[in-house]
Amino acid sequence: MANKEIPYKIYLEESEMPKNWYNMRADMKNKPAPLLNPGTLKPMTKEELAPVFCDELIDQELNETDAYIPIPQEIRNFYKMYRPAPLVRAYCLEKKLQTPAKIYYKFEGNNTSGSHKLNSAIAQAYYAKKQGLKGVTTETGAGQWGTALSMACSYFDLDCKVYMVKVSYEQKPFRREVMRTYGASVTPSPSETTAVGRKILAQHPGTTGSLGCAISEAVEVATTNEGYRYVLGSVLNQVLLHQSIIGLETKIAMDKYDIKPDIIIGCAGGGSNLGGLISPFMGEKLRGEKDYQFIAVEPASCPSFTRGKFAYDFCDTGMICPLAKMYTLGSGFIPSANHAGGLRFHGMSSTLSQLYHDGYMEARAVEQTSVFEAAEQFARVEGILPAPESSHAIRVAIDEALKCKETGEEKTILFGLTGTGYFDMVAYEKFHEGSMTDYIPTDEDLQAGFDGIPKFPGNEF
Amino acid sequence: MANKEIPYKIYLEESEMPKNWYNMRADMKNKPAPLLNPGTLKPMTKEELAPVFCDELIDQELNETDAYIPIPQEIRNFYKMYRPAPLVRAYCLEKKLQTPAKIYYKFEGNNTSGSHKLNSAIAQAYYAKKQGLKGVTTETGAGQWGTALSMACSYFDLDCKVYMVKVSYEQKPFRREVMRTYGASVTPSPSETTAVGRKILAQHPGTTGSLGCAISEAVEVATTNEGYRYVLGSVLNQVLLHQSIIGLETKIAMDKYDIKPDIIIGCAGGGSNLGGLISPFMGEKLRGEKDYQFIAVEPASCPSFTRGKFAYDFCDTGMICPLAKMYTLGSGFIPSANHAGGLRFHGMSSTLSQLYHDGYMEARAVEQTSVFEAAEQFARVEGILPAPESSHAIRVAIDEALKCKETGEEKTILFGLTGTGYFDMVAYEKFHEGSMTDYIPTDEDLQAGFDGIPKFPGNEF
Repeated sequence: MANKEIPYKIYLEESEMPKNWYNMRADMKNKPAPLLNPGTLKPMTKEELAPVFCDELIDQELNETDAYIPIPQEIRNFYKMYRPAPLVRAYCLEKKLQTPAKIYYKFEGNNTSGSHKLNSAIAQAYYAKKQGLKGVTTETGAGQWGTALSMACSYFDLDCKVYMVKVSYEQKPFRREVMRTYGASVTPSPSETTAVGRKILAQHPGTTGSLGCAISEAVEVATTNEGYRYVLGSVLNQVLLHQSIIGLETKIAMDKYDIKPDIIIGCAGGGSNLGGLISPFMGEKLRGEKDYQFIAVEPASCPSFTRGKFAYDFCDTGMICPLAKMYTLGSGFIPSANHAGGLRFHGMSSTLSQLYHDGYMEARAVEQTSVFEAAEQFARVEGILPAPESSHAIRVAIDEALKCKETGEEKTILFGLTGTGYFDMVAYEKFHEGSMTDYIPTDEDLQAGFDGIPKFPGNEF
Repeated sequence: MANKEIPYKIYLEESEMPKNWYNMRADMKNKPAPLLNPGTLKPMTKEELAPVFCDELIDQELNETDAYIPIPQEIRNFYKMYRPAPLVRAYCLEKKLQTPAKIYYKFEGNNTSGSHKLNSAIAQAYYAKKQGLKGVTTETGAGQWGTALSMACSYFDLDCKVYMVKVSYEQKPFRREVMRTYGASVTPSPSETTAVGRKILAQHPGTTGSLGCAISEAVEVATTNEGYRYVLGSVLNQVLLHQSIIGLETKIAMDKYDIKPDIIIGCAGGGSNLGGLISPFMGEKLRGEKDYQFIAVEPASCPSFTRGKFAYDFCDTGMICPLAKMYTLGSGFIPSANHAGGLRFHGMSSTLSQLYHDGYMEARAVEQTSVFEAAEQFARVEGILPAPESSHAIRVAIDEALKCKETGEEKTILFGLTGTGYFDMVAYEKFHEGSMTDYIPTDEDLQAGFDGIPKFPGNEF
């Protein structure tokens, strides 16, 4: 298909859709460090993880040898309801920017959860159902993960208990109603419903919450209720595995038209979308077959990659979860209240952290007003109203395209458009009214978070 | 492709997309009655319409002879950004209902406006730009049309002034922000900004507004400002023409897989979606080539087809627009305040009214709690959170599928899923909390509206 005209949108046929997820870890020479038991500081065993996670998901979490893991037929059937996601050539944006760059984006917002989160939610709900569980608990920040999980649980008739970061719960009242439409219960976090929530509220009265707090609460509820397990929408290896569907579809579509991206850009909170998008491309880079420039984009107000420490740390504020080795701002770090939207986790996927540490990818931090400028510019020419999270990737894609305009280079830029911003209109309103502010934490602000990272031999940073 | 397995979603290739709109009127023996000048009671001429509408749109409005009208390349380019819309086989809904019926829906919600309205908005903005206008004015009810028009105007760099029915403006604050993101100005209607708005407010203090009021205001602003014209998102022949893209794509996709729908269902407010969806199928019926059962679904609280009069009436509350012959509840009719969402226009497309009058289609009125039950049932199995408007069609599609379950008939049911309900969560919340009510106007309620229909020789009803 070389030289064939590239359509605005490339959709795969159902028969072309991936039948396996791709597990990047199999091709990594330096594997991501294992989760540690915070008591013994030894790697968590399957038995130790079993009270928290579903059995088959633990197998996926610990599997660093199998490059391809079959996608069960039931999950593939669900994927067909909203996948393949389109790979879009941003002709209108290119024209507006007058850039010689060719810009593509993989759009994951074509489902009611409004984001890529559904790709892993349906997988996790499937394995929970298969294990005969009653339900699952989880946290949600911007609400996309909670919505996705509630849809997936509705499909498999599982109970779904969602702890939602309080600031998002208040900023996005309608998200709650979407989750209720799918039958989930939603509690603003931190809450009085858990021991860890009460403790956090006592220590930090008036806190607007954080993903770390909400995780602690959800884990407590899962481990203290018969027939429940905890599920997480990002950070974990299993989530990156499920999200590889994004990159796999993208690569099949690009290969079909002989397109090779030079730069691949994704927003990064816990790393689920970025890890999924880059997976098969990173595999080629890891195997020395092809080279790509990968750019992780994070908020300047929550800069795990660009200003965090690479160390073992807790995944949650309550310090009841295993330790993960990752770029972290400290489990006590809570983004400034003016931070809109998601990408507010203090840490980062261990797999992506290792790849970043080993020089396989770059990272950039961007400020939110510049992100909303990019979002609005994109919306006006490409039509789609992007989520604030996704707009971090748009910001850098536009920046790179403008560099090409200066240099005359015809680079091919691919970015992940993870979702839509329909439930983010409070933030858009602030942007329109000029009341949106930026915030870059000082070194002192960050030091407070770093001080909370556990100290033990081998965890120097 | 007979007997080929039907995928969950059928997408056309760009090369398969329609290059012409289809004009149903060309195949109608009884043409829809012309618009009348309310002063002279004579058919409106092009010259009389010119201060209100764009010139080329008037040509389309009056054209009842050309069956196919080429879609300009600029509009086809824009269509490529969000079209083709998927034709979805509702396998999961069929399974849930345990029906032998085969259910398909054409999903028009895959764009930021969240509905099919963009199909006509981009066409109308294109012709306004081509005419060298500064901007356009319009009304919007649920906000879908206003959003679509603001996107289209942003694309062509036109000013966009939207008058939004007050009840929707209050129920859907975020719609306003989406329109602002695309650069439009939004005024709740009736307002103090127009003479007709002030008059309506004086006569009906505390009114929650109606499409008829908002139309009057938008027309006044267009005709009293240099370089502006008025555009309308439904009812008009030109709008049905543009919306024929829905039916044309559907028919191409169905023909490709040898699928023939037995029943075609669409929600009906002013008729834009229904008219667009049925167009090419109705063409075959009008030409005697094939037969289909067409069902228009309207709210029981605004029952133009099922309880209205077929007569000449004003399209707006302020009675400044031309008279159209249509099924009408009277231009003073305002749906009860408990009515959620759109489908609140007092009249109906003249073309559809004529077809209904001549027995080519049926109509049903449904109550809103049963509509939201269908919406939630659909969302939980098909994933998409439907707009309240679209859910009227879902209600009847489910009813028909359940009839097939009783009779064992394997009918093929097609319905239009016009959009998403992301901005309708206030209504969903009422439904969840049990505070949503139904309302069926009494004969006396309706009589008040009928009394406002103008009386003149030949307009007996």
